[in-house]
Amino acid sequence: MNTDLLNSVIEHAKEISVLSGTMALLEWDQHTYMPERAGEFRSQQITWLSGLIHQRHTNPVYGESLRELQRGLDEQSACSPEAANIRGLLRDYEKNVQLPESLVKATALATSIGQQVWVEAKAKDDFAMFKPCLEEIVRLRREEASILQTPGRTKYDSLIDQYEEGADSEQIRVVFEALRRDLVPIVRESIAREKARPTKLSLGKAFPIESQRRLSQWVAQKIGFDFERGRLDETEHPFCTTLGPHDHRILTRYFEDSYSSGLYGVLHEAGHGLYEQGTPADMHGLPAGSAASLGVHESQSRLWENMVGRSVGFWKWLLPTAQTYLPALAGLSVEQIVSDLNRVEQSLIRIEADEATYNLHIFVRFEIEKELIDGDLKVSDLPELWRSRYQEYLGIAPDTDTMGVMQDVHWSAGLIGYFPTYTLGNLYAAQLMETATRQLGDLDTMFAQGEFGPLLDWLKTNVHTKGRSMLPHELMLQVNGAPLDAKPFLSYLQRKLLSK
Amino acid sequence: MNTDLLNSVIEHAKEISVLSGTMALLEWDQHTYMPERAGEFRSQQITWLSGLIHQRHTNPVYGESLRELQRGLDEQSACSPEAANIRGLLRDYEKNVQLPESLVKATALATSIGQQVWVEAKAKDDFAMFKPCLEEIVRLRREEASILQTPGRTKYDSLIDQYEEGADSEQIRVVFEALRRDLVPIVRESIAREKARPTKLSLGKAFPIESQRRLSQWVAQKIGFDFERGRLDETEHPFCTTLGPHDHRILTRYFEDSYSSGLYGVLHEAGHGLYEQGTPADMHGLPAGSAASLGVHESQSRLWENMVGRSVGFWKWLLPTAQTYLPALAGLSVEQIVSDLNRVEQSLIRIEADEATYNLHIFVRFEIEKELIDGDLKVSDLPELWRSRYQEYLGIAPDTDTMGVMQDVHWSAGLIGYFPTYTLGNLYAAQLMETATRQLGDLDTMFAQGEFGPLLDWLKTNVHTKGRSMLPHELMLQVNGAPLDAKPFLSYLQRKLLSK
Repeated sequence: MNTDLLNSVIEHAKEISVLSGTMALLEWDQHTYMPERAGEFRSQQITWLSGLIHQRHTNPVYGESLRELQRGLDEQSACSPEAANIRGLLRDYEKNVQLPESLVKATALATSIGQQVWVEAKAKDDFAMFKPCLEEIVRLRREEASILQTPGRTKYDSLIDQYEEGADSEQIRVVFEALRRDLVPIVRESIAREKARPTKLSLGKAFPIESQRRLSQWVAQKIGFDFERGRLDETEHPFCTTLGPHDHRILTRYFEDSYSSGLYGVLHEAGHGLYEQGTPADMHGLPAGSAASLGVHESQSRLWENMVGRSVGFWKWLLPTAQTYLPALAGLSVEQIVSDLNRVEQSLIRIEADEATYNLHIFVRFEIEKELIDGDLKVSDLPELWRSRYQEYLGIAPDTDTMGVMQDVHWSAGLIGYFPTYTLGNLYAAQLMETATRQLGDLDTMFAQGEFGPLLDWLKTNVHTKGRSMLPHELMLQVNGAPLDAKPFLSYLQRKLLSK
Repeated sequence: MNTDLLNSVIEHAKEISVLSGTMALLEWDQHTYMPERAGEFRSQQITWLSGLIHQRHTNPVYGESLRELQRGLDEQSACSPEAANIRGLLRDYEKNVQLPESLVKATALATSIGQQVWVEAKAKDDFAMFKPCLEEIVRLRREEASILQTPGRTKYDSLIDQYEEGADSEQIRVVFEALRRDLVPIVRESIAREKARPTKLSLGKAFPIESQRRLSQWVAQKIGFDFERGRLDETEHPFCTTLGPHDHRILTRYFEDSYSSGLYGVLHEAGHGLYEQGTPADMHGLPAGSAASLGVHESQSRLWENMVGRSVGFWKWLLPTAQTYLPALAGLSVEQIVSDLNRVEQSLIRIEADEATYNLHIFVRFEIEKELIDGDLKVSDLPELWRSRYQEYLGIAPDTDTMGVMQDVHWSAGLIGYFPTYTLGNLYAAQLMETATRQLGDLDTMFAQGEFGPLLDWLKTNVHTKGRSMLPHELMLQVNGAPLDAKPFLSYLQRKLLSK
């Protein structure tokens, strides 16, 4: 392998990561501390930087170097980590180079403004205010999808591919249908049980924000999130972002009347953060130092949020501490809390949904996105379609667009094709937990003793440190010894919700 | 005037401001929220961006356009706002273009690392740890000074010129000597009075940080700082930074045992912030939308901190509110507080010093800097020289370097030539207050009623909105009708400290 050429390519990719980390800071700040009136200039900054990043991504010399390195790979070197980096960078290059800079900058501008308008429109329940922004974003993403479309695949597939490399909508549809078939009876039966014996706790505005902050920070640290390499802040819609090899930031929001909403935002985002912190820092900016896909990312967040965080063992460990931070939890038993946290119900808000109905929320978005990109669905028809699909899939419909089509930040940020990765993540998470249990023994007993290290180390070894050296489905196949499958997730739900 | 050429130049300059605002965010975050281990990557980002900004600053096409526009200025257009922009941008260009990018990037890297090491070395009182960083910074700044040096002026002059355009060290030395001659007796007499009748309050750790935060925020808002266009955060060493036309951030730090330290940090930095918020936002990134100089900047911060903030009127207004936020102030009179806040004493820490001795702290730094850049003073000799000069000028010397040569962030950030602007600011502030009082009437009576609007409006009209359309001494001459003069400051001190 031509070492000089390899080094120049690596240097170029790392330089891009310096810029991407700067972009991530501009966005993180926009969502946390930026003053109200600074948004317009911030959008200019983001637009400008996105153009610069795109220029670097599509530098012809860089592209030609990658192609030459790829050509030089022989049988011996094809399996090396360097080869995986070259292949990953070249795939990215081949996609990026198709996109005109004007489109990339227009999308950055539209989504930066879009997110700011979304926050205000959501607060005011004013879809008409958000509509022109969303129309522009959909128009730009359709254009991008047309450009990236490959033979035999749909436009929407090309957007999905940006988040879950190698996946397509038909394959996802098949898995989702299989899942839905067995999920619906589980949901129906769980809701019937909940009606017969309600488990919902009603505790009022009993949870001071400051106490929740401290408890959440404590929990994140205990499950292994490294605060020397990260932080926890607050924002409208929880997320996790990477600003550098040692800079991973998680964000949540707290409500005085909920002990769980903020905390589970943290557990979810810390799951993402643990993954990012587990990728090889010295490979930051290269495929070997990146996450495999958003589906794999979601497997980590959903695993920590739900499979760890809503388990009996976890609450056996946490309850005494939680009661010292939040005295309103005094007198409650582990069983009461765990039942409250796992009750299945028809609900409107995805990120507050239980693990079973959660996927129904995803199905709604997946179908709408497909119609929006591959069909001719209009943005103006979204609120109504949203209501009717919720009625059909979840048996309820929102009275407001704030609780409906405007609940999620994603579309305002241009993230179309992203939602299906949430359900993929649920399925991968269940498969990973099955494999981990097989190899490590009973995890719930460990959680009850506050021992999260064995699970985290296992995930580090088998998932995090692998980076993006393989396609996501290849990585999951390697760890689990089986392809993507809804069954482990369904049996997990069956066991958790209907075994008692 | 060639409008197309003018527009292209303005667009280029505004593009630079988009990048400078990004740089300011990287630095603000480094000083506030950045995780501990993220510093190394952050330094890379700052270095890289500084190179990019320098490239734009020195773009030959941009430079040639500026020269052509300058040549095209006739008598009629020479006084227009556009002409002021062209002249200012061209002056910047002519200076920037002399500096090699390698030097600019090396300085950015050295100062980004320098600030991080300084924080740690200061905390540990370990000058040896900081020394290599400071040596590198001094070496780079000496090199820069040599490059920028012009005939008849010293190397140090060329650094001062970066902060106070048109000023030089000899002119400053003369003013400082005149000031010192009359200041020393005032200090001596004030200290004698303080010894005869001590006014220092000893209140213990009675001031909860959270209450101080809320009080400071309230005060900053009342004097006119616009929180829709800015914020207040905390850091090791207070500062104010501009991230965009509507994004001005002030930073302070609080101590539980002081009701005033955090608050006066805020008043000082809010003074800077008010100036920045008062410059024309639509001219952001151009001379017409920039501050005139650091001396003028300091005139605003010192004016709000001292001439407003330590006045009797201000405390007549503030005390009742301050007592509700900080109950430990209950029972104290306005006179007690004002005496406490204006007592003159020999002290070690510049930013905590009273208004009279403050300038002695500046004289020490000014002389040391001159020897460091124009002479052959070694960094390793700094701690000892610091102690001996403090002994000479202030009659006391620090036991530690934390309280001595490492107390200020400036040198770690490469800011050499900056300190003299603090005393220039004091002198300008007194001249401005004399002029404002002549034109507006008795300000103290207004302050006592919480009326800060008239003074702020006057400053906006006469200083803030003028931007950098003139050289700083020209602007001050225009407002005050008199050149830089130490007398108004000396009579102000005389009146305040020795009239009773």
